[in-house]
Amino acid sequence: MLAGAAAGVATPVVVTAVGGMPEALAAESANNAGGRTRRVTMYAQPLPDGLIGYGLSPEEASVPGPVLEIWEGDALEIELVNNTDKRLSIHPHGVDYGVDSDGSPLNGSFNEPGETRTYVWRTRAPAKGPGNMWLPGSAGYWHYHDHAMGGDHGTEGLRKGLYGALVVRRKGDILPDRQYTVVFNDMTINNRVAPDVPVLEANLGQRVEFIAIGHGNNFHTFHLHAHRWADNRTGYLEGPNDPSRVVDNRDLNPGDSFGFQVVAGEGVGPGAWMYHCHVQFHSDGGMAGVFLVRNADGSMPDGAQEALDRYHRHGGQ
Amino acid sequence: MLAGAAAGVATPVVVTAVGGMPEALAAESANNAGGRTRRVTMYAQPLPDGLIGYGLSPEEASVPGPVLEIWEGDALEIELVNNTDKRLSIHPHGVDYGVDSDGSPLNGSFNEPGETRTYVWRTRAPAKGPGNMWLPGSAGYWHYHDHAMGGDHGTEGLRKGLYGALVVRRKGDILPDRQYTVVFNDMTINNRVAPDVPVLEANLGQRVEFIAIGHGNNFHTFHLHAHRWADNRTGYLEGPNDPSRVVDNRDLNPGDSFGFQVVAGEGVGPGAWMYHCHVQFHSDGGMAGVFLVRNADGSMPDGAQEALDRYHRHGGQ
Amino acid sequence: MLAGAAAGVATPVVVTAVGGMPEALAAESANNAGGRTRRVTMYAQPLPDGLIGYGLSPEEASVPGPVLEIWEGDALEIELVNNTDKRLSIHPHGVDYGVDSDGSPLNGSFNEPGETRTYVWRTRAPAKGPGNMWLPGSAGYWHYHDHAMGGDHGTEGLRKGLYGALVVRRKGDILPDRQYTVVFNDMTINNRVAPDVPVLEANLGQRVEFIAIGHGNNFHTFHLHAHRWADNRTGYLEGPNDPSRVVDNRDLNPGDSFGFQVVAGEGVGPGAWMYHCHVQFHSDGGMAGVFLVRNADGSMPDGAQEALDRYHRHGGQ
Repeated sequence: MLAGAAAGVATPVVVTAVGGMPEALAAESANNAGGRTRRVTMYAQPLPDGLIGYGLSPEEASVPGPVLEIWEGDALEIELVNNTDKRLSIHPHGVDYGVDSDGSPLNGSFNEPGETRTYVWRTRAPAKGPGNMWLPGSAGYWHYHDHAMGGDHGTEGLRKGLYGALVVRRKGDILPDRQYTVVFNDMTINNRVAPDVPVLEANLGQRVEFIAIGHGNNFHTFHLHAHRWADNRTGYLEGPNDPSRVVDNRDLNPGDSFGFQVVAGEGVGPGAWMYHCHVQFHSDGGMAGVFLVRNADGSMPDGAQEALDRYHRHGGQ
Repeated sequence: MLAGAAAGVATPVVVTAVGGMPEALAAESANNAGGRTRRVTMYAQPLPDGLIGYGLSPEEASVPGPVLEIWEGDALEIELVNNTDKRLSIHPHGVDYGVDSDGSPLNGSFNEPGETRTYVWRTRAPAKGPGNMWLPGSAGYWHYHDHAMGGDHGTEGLRKGLYGALVVRRKGDILPDRQYTVVFNDMTINNRVAPDVPVLEANLGQRVEFIAIGHGNNFHTFHLHAHRWADNRTGYLEGPNDPSRVVDNRDLNPGDSFGFQVVAGEGVGPGAWMYHCHVQFHSDGGMAGVFLVRNADGSMPDGAQEALDRYHRHGGQ
Repeated sequence: MLAGAAAGVATPVVVTAVGGMPEALAAESANNAGGRTRRVTMYAQPLPDGLIGYGLSPEEASVPGPVLEIWEGDALEIELVNNTDKRLSIHPHGVDYGVDSDGSPLNGSFNEPGETRTYVWRTRAPAKGPGNMWLPGSAGYWHYHDHAMGGDHGTEGLRKGLYGALVVRRKGDILPDRQYTVVFNDMTINNRVAPDVPVLEANLGQRVEFIAIGHGNNFHTFHLHAHRWADNRTGYLEGPNDPSRVVDNRDLNPGDSFGFQVVAGEGVGPGAWMYHCHVQFHSDGGMAGVFLVRNADGSMPDGAQEALDRYHRHGGQ
């Protein structure tokens, strides 16, 4: 989302403010009254090793796809180009869409091979209902994925990498300095296993946003060393008495997503901090990566290179 | 719960206000001081295809059983008639009961074949404890199930359908227009697989209550297309600043339950919306159904019949 | 934690206030300004049946290890003695530590066989961040475990019993009368199966704290009969309008932990109440124990001995 935002995978990922530079996005926060429609073209593109990725251009397609990020109240119009030889779609979580934009074969909402099709997602603020009932708004750490390749639930598309993060921010939400998407997809992280799982980098004191998404057939738990977050909408507390649970390990099962921001290395210092699935045979099997917190000036902290070397030699072992 | 409430399965299910018509139930909301005991007779009854269901009469037995619904502060006295040739019981979650009403063989609390036995469940409001501690009340989206057939944990009874929803409402809670029970029981929804999973119907704008329950040996995630809810006690927000996570996909593991109300088609329009387990091989294997949101006047929206036809031809595929 | 606190396993476990008697601990609650460092020596010790336990002395090593309990703001310095012939470590959840105290082979943070090594854990109160962002404090029901034996994630150490509870209390938190650690580790509870799972005892009206921890390779759900709690930081409600979900069954997956206090037998009376994994083949396979609520005077309630006898004969079946 920001110029400094690094990729969720080794392959470069465009982390997109969907039509805005970060400064513009931040400025909008104060002024946005909602109701605007942003337009973007996405490409579903074959990649090496049998993968398929979404990208904002064919060259930028990646696994996971770009972070799509909008403000609550805005809409997103996605022109999806299918550059594969199979039917596929894009199905979002959390936002509003009509049956035409459902992305499901049930509603005939998908792209045939080579076809271009437009999907529209809308968002809205919380609204008063009857009695003490408030209807939830759209803000949240959501995600999007294929729902049509290899069956009616997109099982083949998901297996090959057709997934990404969707962030809907509420006015007043704090923006991060860096942003990473971590997808536990079957026995992989972003379709990779250690030692090829992305090293996520930040400098000491930067506000780093993690967007965690689960997919596939297995249950998982996401654990990050030496950092913790609140298990609520934003991942941080609304105040000192917010009763939300604070966690450093959380279930991450298929179709689920959550997000949070941590201040890199706060209270613990820089270094190579693991993140991994806490199911033992999953982490032993390669579902482990490194969150590298550099010194505040960007230099390498003592011992961190040795840790990275161990990781790359042994895959977290 | 209301006259208009449709069944959680194709077989008619009595959705019961336990002794009250909905208007009466709503009226009670304002006046109920708690402390009343409601009495009901339940029958555990063999059904076709090797199933066993609970019912408020032998003819009404179904899978899942009827929704039992009371106000926080009230008690429920259940005379359970065992019309099978095996021992069984009824064990509730969330409410208060003595060891005699535990429903567990550990406490000798079950019905022998042919036996009738009374179980008493009580409920209470939150209460002040020491310091800042408040003891939780009974209000919640709970459930009941057999705990004695085929072992000491009711594994056979659960497999055959002896389960249902239990709703304890708090004064001030909003009542729904329609109500559905969705049980992820092993690799089925309400012991059925697509294309035989119940089509849940509502008209655009109706407040529809889902009560989701998990049972069996597998982990699941419940996903509903185009609708979302708060992951808290009621499923809606208490106010615009309620920090609860808003979700459209949620873990639903054995013994767990949650409930929520959505306004059918709000912000997305009428149509055939899928609900399914988001574990890929579960949805591909038939854990998928349709939430049919009709037009406000009850007529069929454009394209919805085609979607239903696809569902019935392919089982969600 | 208190003199009356019973063991989480049949083997006596020192439930430790880490340098304080309970009265002292309670007194600290009012006066603690944080910032103190408590020091303790822990031993990783081979036990019969191939188990390995942590203990505050070699003789007290047990599975699970002792409850380590501190106040938010304090630090804990652990001198870990490795009395086994394999490398191992101690890795905490929820608290702050530098890379040297990470407990992971990635950071070279472990004890070689026979080696003694010091690990430092720090804690802090919630703190104001930018905007409406509050950074979570350390208070919580956490846990510690080996992260180095049999691979880089401690899989062998965990399988053999190198785990325990870590409680960080916030000023004002209510202290329990009794305290139990329940670890769902693969298909066991505290590395035992019924009928050898610990009987947890309390007297009617006592405030009993459960600390539930998940480990291993399987997913689980923790269910306690006839008692319920809030799914938030403390397990009790902050007030009558706290929107937290109230539960009596909760996911308990590897690396996760939660805690809560119940008033033993409140509203339901004394007796033998089951706690078990609600995954059917797990409970049938022995993941079931008894929470024995005695009469207020400590005498045995009617029928409870019979229930215990059934449990010990049949292992919960």
